[in-house]
Amino acid sequence: MALRKDYTRPLDLKHGRVDMNHGAGGRASAQLIEALFARAFDNPALREGNDGAVLPAPPAGHRLVLATDAHVISPLFFPGGDIGALSVHGTVNDVAMMGAQPLYLSASFILEEGLPLADLKRIVDSMAAAAREAGVAIVTGDTKVVEQGHGDGVFINTTGAGWLPPGRRLGGDLARPGDVVLVSGPIGDHGVAVLSKRESLEFETEIVSDSAALNGLTAAMLAAVPEGSVRVLRDPTRGGLATTLNEITRQSGTGITLDEAKIPVRAQVEAACELLGLDPLYVACEGRLVAICAPDVADPLLAAMQAHPLGQQAARIGLVTDDPHRFVQMATRFGGRRVVDWLSGEQLPRIC
Amino acid sequence: MALRKDYTRPLDLKHGRVDMNHGAGGRASAQLIEALFARAFDNPALREGNDGAVLPAPPAGHRLVLATDAHVISPLFFPGGDIGALSVHGTVNDVAMMGAQPLYLSASFILEEGLPLADLKRIVDSMAAAAREAGVAIVTGDTKVVEQGHGDGVFINTTGAGWLPPGRRLGGDLARPGDVVLVSGPIGDHGVAVLSKRESLEFETEIVSDSAALNGLTAAMLAAVPEGSVRVLRDPTRGGLATTLNEITRQSGTGITLDEAKIPVRAQVEAACELLGLDPLYVACEGRLVAICAPDVADPLLAAMQAHPLGQQAARIGLVTDDPHRFVQMATRFGGRRVVDWLSGEQLPRIC
Repeated sequence: MALRKDYTRPLDLKHGRVDMNHGAGGRASAQLIEALFARAFDNPALREGNDGAVLPAPPAGHRLVLATDAHVISPLFFPGGDIGALSVHGTVNDVAMMGAQPLYLSASFILEEGLPLADLKRIVDSMAAAAREAGVAIVTGDTKVVEQGHGDGVFINTTGAGWLPPGRRLGGDLARPGDVVLVSGPIGDHGVAVLSKRESLEFETEIVSDSAALNGLTAAMLAAVPEGSVRVLRDPTRGGLATTLNEITRQSGTGITLDEAKIPVRAQVEAACELLGLDPLYVACEGRLVAICAPDVADPLLAAMQAHPLGQQAARIGLVTDDPHRFVQMATRFGGRRVVDWLSGEQLPRIC
Repeated sequence: MALRKDYTRPLDLKHGRVDMNHGAGGRASAQLIEALFARAFDNPALREGNDGAVLPAPPAGHRLVLATDAHVISPLFFPGGDIGALSVHGTVNDVAMMGAQPLYLSASFILEEGLPLADLKRIVDSMAAAAREAGVAIVTGDTKVVEQGHGDGVFINTTGAGWLPPGRRLGGDLARPGDVVLVSGPIGDHGVAVLSKRESLEFETEIVSDSAALNGLTAAMLAAVPEGSVRVLRDPTRGGLATTLNEITRQSGTGITLDEAKIPVRAQVEAACELLGLDPLYVACEGRLVAICAPDVADPLLAAMQAHPLGQQAARIGLVTDDPHRFVQMATRFGGRRVVDWLSGEQLPRIC
């Protein structure tokens, strides 16, 4: 006789595990949602308990920005973060890079049967803390469960919504020759932190992910200079700085020249990359941004970045050029010049 | 020597397979997005190619509705549908059930290494067709790849956004004693169609999923009766009609009595359920809705439903009652009465 679980008893968040019933839509699903998600994310829209969330009308003329990300990072917990916080940061940042203020997130979970509920609680609590810190509310969600061996612990999708003020437009197509390329801090920390944990590598100093919500930084930047003078904001996640810049030259029909000596990379990240055969230019960040701006605002914009806790090590790293080949090129520290191409193989799988 | 794939050659959508590079954010990712997703979903917001989509401001006073769903259905293709169309219908319906007009979807994909690109193309084309038919645009997206054995073909998250007109409010908490319960058509088709395919069962007549976008039906319903007289709209997906009604009685603090003889169930669905040991009341629909309305509009609302192609078999199936126990009860065809409880075990895993 099969033991029938009793879903009227409290959820055992210490020793329990996710089972298929938690995804079946019945009493077990309701219990998981109430005891875990609703409690951690609590807000008026979510509390309504309907199929979707009703949110306030925007200020007049404000447009809607939507961005979405699936998070499949492995391992789930890494130095400086976890999949929960990352799933908030990743999507908040995508909305912020459009120049909008992120306000609302949806969150959907694909859980693997057997996942310890204690791990799930830790992840959900981390998401809730990250959302509070970023000033966004998780207003609607969904939970599915797949059989053991058909998932990998937990995958989290978040979709973010925010309002874009009238007259503001940022986008990769707006870069133009003469514009200045800035980066908000050292690159590659996130990718190296995740890889070192995954491969159980030990470095003398622990490298910690840079995972962070950048909406405070972008708001400060956009307030510091005239509307229109910031052309592009983008966070160099998968594929790293090199790929992000190649996307921008492709969108805008320009080239970019970088000055290698100016690109901030922590010494221990550089050392780890050397050991691992990685190029930091291609390693993902989750709390850095690239800004491309009109030359006359580069100094005040850089100053605004450096005045913010998440931009203290911001630097001017290159220039947008007139280049029909749309190449990203780099003046190396040794006085040479090389093309920084798209990532064409696999740098780091499941890094976000 | 490992063969290095050439991602500058066209994507082989006939014989190719998803590999880890398609999720790494470099050239292979860009190729997959351009050759497959961008082409199928093409629209101005998506074409911008930025981290998120910028969408128009709503009409004055309109509120934002957001809803999200992860889709993990197995098998990916089933009679009457596939995971692609389903992922559009599921989320469009959640937005529509709030009384809003769904307009925009985000789509994010978690692909398993080895998935045939031909299957992915079929799914993406089906999504695109479903979105066109429902009048929504897929405006932003994301793609991740996980190693073979860590996913299951493809999981799709969609998040929907739409605008809710001023003064409109629907919700499970608004049901009140005396209100009438309507259903838009026969229940259980979707669940039985999926299960029959999964278990390779053959019935005399093929049972086809009811998967459909209901936003046209809800718009027609809401236009037919005075604002406020429709209290609740909800689609009985996972957990079926029984679970949906229990959610509503819990939210509103009421009871519901159903008349079993009035609940439309196709004869072949009933026969299949009997064979499989399932109760149709708990079997998921993906193209049906439950409406709870004021008694004086029940007739015109039912007429509006029956006049719509997706509501031709709509029926009045029960009444909201004053019941402190918040029970859903049913007068059976044999003159008895039984409590229709929450689904407490697992009816059908991975049905959506």
